[in-house]
Amino acid sequence: MNPSGSPLLTDLYQFNMIQAYLDRDETGTAVFEFFSRKLPKRREFFMAAGLEQALDYLEDLRFSPEEIEWLAGTKRFRKNLLDYLRDFRFTGDVHAMPEGTAFFPDEPIFRVTAPLPQAQLIETRIVNLLHFQSLIASKAARMVLAAPGKLLLDFGLRSAHGAEAGLLAARASYIAGFAGTATVLAGMNFGIPIFGTMAHSFILAHDDEMQAFEDFARARPDSVILLIDTYDTEAGARKVVALAPKLKAEGITVRGVRIDSGDLIALSKSVRKILNGGGLPDAAIFVSGGVDEDVLLKIAKAGAPIDGFGIGTSLTTSSDAPALDCAYKLQEYGGTARRKRSPGKETWPGRKQVWRRYAPDGGLADDVLSIAGDKQEGEALIVPVMQGGKRLAPKPSLADIRAHAARELQRLPPELRKLEANAVYPVQPAEALTKLAAEVDSRSAK
Amino acid sequence: MNPSGSPLLTDLYQFNMIQAYLDRDETGTAVFEFFSRKLPKRREFFMAAGLEQALDYLEDLRFSPEEIEWLAGTKRFRKNLLDYLRDFRFTGDVHAMPEGTAFFPDEPIFRVTAPLPQAQLIETRIVNLLHFQSLIASKAARMVLAAPGKLLLDFGLRSAHGAEAGLLAARASYIAGFAGTATVLAGMNFGIPIFGTMAHSFILAHDDEMQAFEDFARARPDSVILLIDTYDTEAGARKVVALAPKLKAEGITVRGVRIDSGDLIALSKSVRKILNGGGLPDAAIFVSGGVDEDVLLKIAKAGAPIDGFGIGTSLTTSSDAPALDCAYKLQEYGGTARRKRSPGKETWPGRKQVWRRYAPDGGLADDVLSIAGDKQEGEALIVPVMQGGKRLAPKPSLADIRAHAARELQRLPPELRKLEANAVYPVQPAEALTKLAAEVDSRSAK
Repeated sequence: MNPSGSPLLTDLYQFNMIQAYLDRDETGTAVFEFFSRKLPKRREFFMAAGLEQALDYLEDLRFSPEEIEWLAGTKRFRKNLLDYLRDFRFTGDVHAMPEGTAFFPDEPIFRVTAPLPQAQLIETRIVNLLHFQSLIASKAARMVLAAPGKLLLDFGLRSAHGAEAGLLAARASYIAGFAGTATVLAGMNFGIPIFGTMAHSFILAHDDEMQAFEDFARARPDSVILLIDTYDTEAGARKVVALAPKLKAEGITVRGVRIDSGDLIALSKSVRKILNGGGLPDAAIFVSGGVDEDVLLKIAKAGAPIDGFGIGTSLTTSSDAPALDCAYKLQEYGGTARRKRSPGKETWPGRKQVWRRYAPDGGLADDVLSIAGDKQEGEALIVPVMQGGKRLAPKPSLADIRAHAARELQRLPPELRKLEANAVYPVQPAEALTKLAAEVDSRSAK
Repeated sequence: MNPSGSPLLTDLYQFNMIQAYLDRDETGTAVFEFFSRKLPKRREFFMAAGLEQALDYLEDLRFSPEEIEWLAGTKRFRKNLLDYLRDFRFTGDVHAMPEGTAFFPDEPIFRVTAPLPQAQLIETRIVNLLHFQSLIASKAARMVLAAPGKLLLDFGLRSAHGAEAGLLAARASYIAGFAGTATVLAGMNFGIPIFGTMAHSFILAHDDEMQAFEDFARARPDSVILLIDTYDTEAGARKVVALAPKLKAEGITVRGVRIDSGDLIALSKSVRKILNGGGLPDAAIFVSGGVDEDVLLKIAKAGAPIDGFGIGTSLTTSSDAPALDCAYKLQEYGGTARRKRSPGKETWPGRKQVWRRYAPDGGLADDVLSIAGDKQEGEALIVPVMQGGKRLAPKPSLADIRAHAARELQRLPPELRKLEANAVYPVQPAEALTKLAAEVDSRSAK
């Protein structure tokens, strides 16, 4: 099962609509934009991610003979649609915010300009890809801000929602500033640094905890991190201290210990004392188990001597806000701006641009949302990335994306960097955009 | 990118541990069980799902030459491990609860009996697969119970966490009693009925809402469901009424309308009146947008005339509880039962069986958790499904799994069926299991 590239990974209604468009030759140029309507409760900003996977999808999108045959077999569609799909290629343009950019509600991060049926077909998967990675990058960025100078690692493949979620969560969190992941395939596919120690099962498979430590150290002499909480954490730390000289004599250094349960603050302090007292002041303390940004902030405040964190479920499911309120909306068709007026779901019409203005110290000051082409002061964040279905530039390296994200986090306003509840970043619509919205509404008010 | 079957879709620590196991020939038989430690706040029971994907994974698991080469290139592992992986096949046994079975905390739904390195390697992906589908089936089952007799549809691919999550959420919700999905690929891959209407963009792409309705009806004459909330829902309903006779004359019947925003209860009542008054008493009303089991219960209580629901984010992300507290734990190695004693993470040791007892009316009465082989009264829920790496029976049909799930929901105790907060189903450990746990603890208490 390889669902990730199939053009059938979309909603049935897309094909219904394309049938209708083709029947009446409604294949004019449409403009859709992807954006989020509002921040979840515990988010002060978003971080854009997923663009490269979205562009890969658009470049590679085509129907296999089996897929066309299956669609034909449903007897829902006519020949003109099936013929259209058989030769389908995405030939449109894409403008987008670079991955790693901080963004805010109503600001598009992705704009498609393409024949209407094409722009419609791709909707579901484009949302699926941009939503998920932006969700995870936004969550991971909070953790990075909550634990300055600490090593943060993605340990969340098992609780991620499926294979692709695990793999792309590793990518999105690495972009946001995590140091790496436990997911081996993310190492192979994306070159993300991989990390790993041992599980409780390793200890349990031995009759003796000390023997388990010793066996592990000999098997992985270059990365001896010992899990000490299977039975009693402090007793585990004392066994590490007792074992260390014997290993040292063989040229093996204990790099650190991991604690996966209990009161992490209290245990890290007592374990630090045991390790220091036992001649292991350089052995690091890693913790895991239920860590999120609240725990990280508490640990930072308590000054707990913890060097690194393995973070699972809270990261890869974005557990406190597992979805963003996102939309991919038709903003223009046949040269005319459009918008929906469903209560609570109004959107800004037309092709848009986001202008970011900076304070003298380089920090973010405010954003202006304008009609594309209505030049404002500041930096234009939405740039062309694909033309006629082809990328305009080679893929940026993950290292470059990550460096951009780090700069973004650094220049966020202080109240956002501190994750202060109710911190609000100012985004204003430009005058011409407000006027356009009123015009569009008066036109369709019938 | 096809991550779903790769053996590298696992945590690095598995390879660390396997290296140590191979170095010391610790390849004896291990028994691991997958279970959930506790119910999230708003869950009264779980529903097992994901077994068939887990068995597919085990049957197909092997390393490609590229994967071996990449692992070798990391310089983390020695030749004995790389040789072992090159020829890797899963040769173990699996016992499991059938998909669609209701289960409760501490009850294993999946047991692996295999050489220790094999059982270790598969951990991450097995958890990833069983956790996600059980999560979604458990959530979907609540919705099914909250909306008896209503048509429930999965509309959540776009907000699902990636491709596989969307596809498997369609499967898990169908098992739990949903009528189908909007995800086309779930139709092709699993034979799940697919449903779809039109999006707001279709209306917006037309200058006139009435014209949009007419075009759509002609393009999809067999399934005319019209989306009426783009501008004004009641006005939209009146347009449908005005258009229906013209379509009727062409032999096209309006099957229904969809409302995607606003006060769904009030709007469904006023729209019902408009449709009935306009000679369309048979046109169904479908709603979508922010629907979850709370909304369904409220709608049922209000007697709102809604026939079907498209449910997205709350279903495919299980938004109120996006992860279950699951574990895959070593319960036995080398013939000896084991358990971890980390605070708050104690587990029942040994191979286990779940015995379910029924009331005279056929409803669930209580469960007993025993050591496998310690025969208790009731039905043994954990059955052999794989031996020596091969399935013991052909895959059950999705229809059969779904029918089993429906029976399970029907015979849940009434307070669980009503989703009553604090409803608790009784699960008791058998005496011999309690004794075994004490024995294991006394053995490892050093």
